[in-house]
Amino acid sequence: MNASDETLMTSSNAAVRQPAQAREATEAASGSSLEGRLLARLLARLGDPALEFVLWNGERIAPAGCEPVCRVRIPSRGTLLGILADPQVRFPDAYSDGSIQIEGDLVRLLEAIYLAGARAPAPSALGRLIAHLRRPHLNTLAGSRANIHHHYDIGNPFYSLWLGQTMAYTCAYYPSAEATLDVAQTAKMDHVCRKMRLRPGERVVEAGCGWGTFALHMARHYGVKVRAFNISREQVAYARERAEREGLAGQVEYVQDDYRNISGRYDAFVSVGMLEHVGVANYEGLGAVVARSLGDNGRGLIHSIGRNYPAPLQPWIEKRIFPGACPPSLGQMMRIFEPWDLSILDAENLRLHYAQTLRHWLELFEAASDQVERMFDAKFVRTWRMYLAGSIAGFTTGTLQLFQVLFATRQNNDVPMTRAHLYAR
Amino acid sequence: MNASDETLMTSSNAAVRQPAQAREATEAASGSSLEGRLLARLLARLGDPALEFVLWNGERIAPAGCEPVCRVRIPSRGTLLGILADPQVRFPDAYSDGSIQIEGDLVRLLEAIYLAGARAPAPSALGRLIAHLRRPHLNTLAGSRANIHHHYDIGNPFYSLWLGQTMAYTCAYYPSAEATLDVAQTAKMDHVCRKMRLRPGERVVEAGCGWGTFALHMARHYGVKVRAFNISREQVAYARERAEREGLAGQVEYVQDDYRNISGRYDAFVSVGMLEHVGVANYEGLGAVVARSLGDNGRGLIHSIGRNYPAPLQPWIEKRIFPGACPPSLGQMMRIFEPWDLSILDAENLRLHYAQTLRHWLELFEAASDQVERMFDAKFVRTWRMYLAGSIAGFTTGTLQLFQVLFATRQNNDVPMTRAHLYAR
Repeated sequence: MNASDETLMTSSNAAVRQPAQAREATEAASGSSLEGRLLARLLARLGDPALEFVLWNGERIAPAGCEPVCRVRIPSRGTLLGILADPQVRFPDAYSDGSIQIEGDLVRLLEAIYLAGARAPAPSALGRLIAHLRRPHLNTLAGSRANIHHHYDIGNPFYSLWLGQTMAYTCAYYPSAEATLDVAQTAKMDHVCRKMRLRPGERVVEAGCGWGTFALHMARHYGVKVRAFNISREQVAYARERAEREGLAGQVEYVQDDYRNISGRYDAFVSVGMLEHVGVANYEGLGAVVARSLGDNGRGLIHSIGRNYPAPLQPWIEKRIFPGACPPSLGQMMRIFEPWDLSILDAENLRLHYAQTLRHWLELFEAASDQVERMFDAKFVRTWRMYLAGSIAGFTTGTLQLFQVLFATRQNNDVPMTRAHLYAR
Repeated sequence: MNASDETLMTSSNAAVRQPAQAREATEAASGSSLEGRLLARLLARLGDPALEFVLWNGERIAPAGCEPVCRVRIPSRGTLLGILADPQVRFPDAYSDGSIQIEGDLVRLLEAIYLAGARAPAPSALGRLIAHLRRPHLNTLAGSRANIHHHYDIGNPFYSLWLGQTMAYTCAYYPSAEATLDVAQTAKMDHVCRKMRLRPGERVVEAGCGWGTFALHMARHYGVKVRAFNISREQVAYARERAEREGLAGQVEYVQDDYRNISGRYDAFVSVGMLEHVGVANYEGLGAVVARSLGDNGRGLIHSIGRNYPAPLQPWIEKRIFPGACPPSLGQMMRIFEPWDLSILDAENLRLHYAQTLRHWLELFEAASDQVERMFDAKFVRTWRMYLAGSIAGFTTGTLQLFQVLFATRQNNDVPMTRAHLYAR
């Protein structure tokens, strides 16, 4: 499932799995049939999440000494064997195609798995082998087009059902716990603009502009000219139409092209939620684009899902939801900046804001699930529910992070001494 | 000199020297004698800083087409040949021992060199070889003791002449441009405590506590218990005496020992200005100390001089001032956190605050220079002036950075949603 195999996922980075906190031996889950014992062994390897499994024969498997937060019914031997062979992909697939049932809250189930993963033992040899054999989708120019098309071009009407008024498909910023999704998305846009201290008349380049909302916001409220790049055909069509309708087409130009083809000089470079799709191997090249785009007092901001340490994306998510995607650690993000002598001014972690954003999206998604099912099918609804719930769990348990990194050219001394201006009313 | 050979210094990281900004060919400096032509060549390799050199024979060497900010008189052939052989060490040495004269502002001179370095061509083969052959002092347990003793044990009365009331020997935090040194040092301590959200009764471990001021501040104003580690005998003696005198010995324990020997569990781990002395090779080990010191809701802050990319410390500074020291890039700092699944919550760059702190120190140092000369000698005064002025130039030109990195254990959700609390009155 989305989280289950943090253990296996991190196999490429075994050092991470040996933190200083002692790994207490967890009590073994029960299980009397052969299949039950195999499942109990898998669960032990996952750190014994607080879940109960019920097999087709009524057998119950749960870790001793803790209250399960959720129950999973596995109604056939074949389904279980599939899960045992490749739990990271086959468990969420089994949920998607309806061959297992989950009783209880899906987010809590996935949180239990993530939390257990943090105290799981090192991955097995098989787990390491599987992780090694997985090949994420490449991010060549053509590969990126295919990867982005897979996710972002499945229909603007679908996304408009659950992203709220702003159509912003990235982490929002909640100035208060009561803020609505739309308020928080707008606050995020202002937070980023204020961090960059945009001034009227400046030129901004945006890499990966989604449905174009942020570019319009910058133009309307900060008086800047924006060139916004995106390779999603559907998103660019939507954005252009909207800029025309809102009378901002003279200030905002949407370019259907890859960030690698950005040309020209700008005062600021901004990218919100694209880096996840770039691929770590391309970070130095992205930095080259940033460096050549900025003048002497240049600055910019990159906003991305991240991790505490380098690890591939959960493979089911990579396979079914975001082909080619990989959230970087902050250390990996530095490969964008360090080769080009760019200075990091500020990095902020908004992990808990993304959990809240996703809760709001999931609520809207559930409210529209009948419509979604009519647009696609029931399997699609379950797949996306798994993805959204798993993402909430990733952020609440710290398996995923959200970094906003503000940077400037080395010699830019036109930077504020403190960050108080961000919080002034 | 402190800055001159950024070019050479970064030879281990040649990629950095090729940023996207085109390197314009600089106009050659003049120079008609053989020595003059060799000096002109060296200056071209350093990016032609806006300086005029006057040789013993009256010959003047300066880059064409720009106004020199400073004049350097080199009164003998022998001195020049030494500088040509190893400018990074021999230029500042020549200033220290009085064998060259500088007319004009030393900070501006060093800034000119740093700024030129940013547009200098890649280092020569000789420069790369020299950089490769330099061996910084090691930071084994015994090596660190010797390194720290070299700088911090030269006399508390000396330091008290120019560090201000707080005896804090790290970057201050200026809430406003008018803040005095003492106000800014106190504001820095509060800024760090507020970032960590210290609460009465909590236990804090401090790695590298200087003269103990910050530990006392945390105990007095935030009601925490502090264990503070330091291997400088003079500093620990000073700190203990002060804790006794101020009635805080029951709340603050100073331990004369290496950070590697920290034991016990704490709510927070803090280190202000020690990381520069740790050595990048020891970062994962430092992270192990952090991870084993923190409980479930643990958090902490590391404050350190840094760089935009990995590079050794300027070799004269490493040789004469801070043996064994090396300011890390933010990417290098991540080697502390990533192996232990620690989450970065916030990173702030206070580079311009350190420039201002150093200006205040240099002012006090100059005002007390007669006393310093009586304590030591005139060469010592010039050496320390070069060090302080070069550090100002490092921070104003972005050759040096100052990072405060706030972190927490992965599962710590007891973190504020926003940073507004840091700026609330």
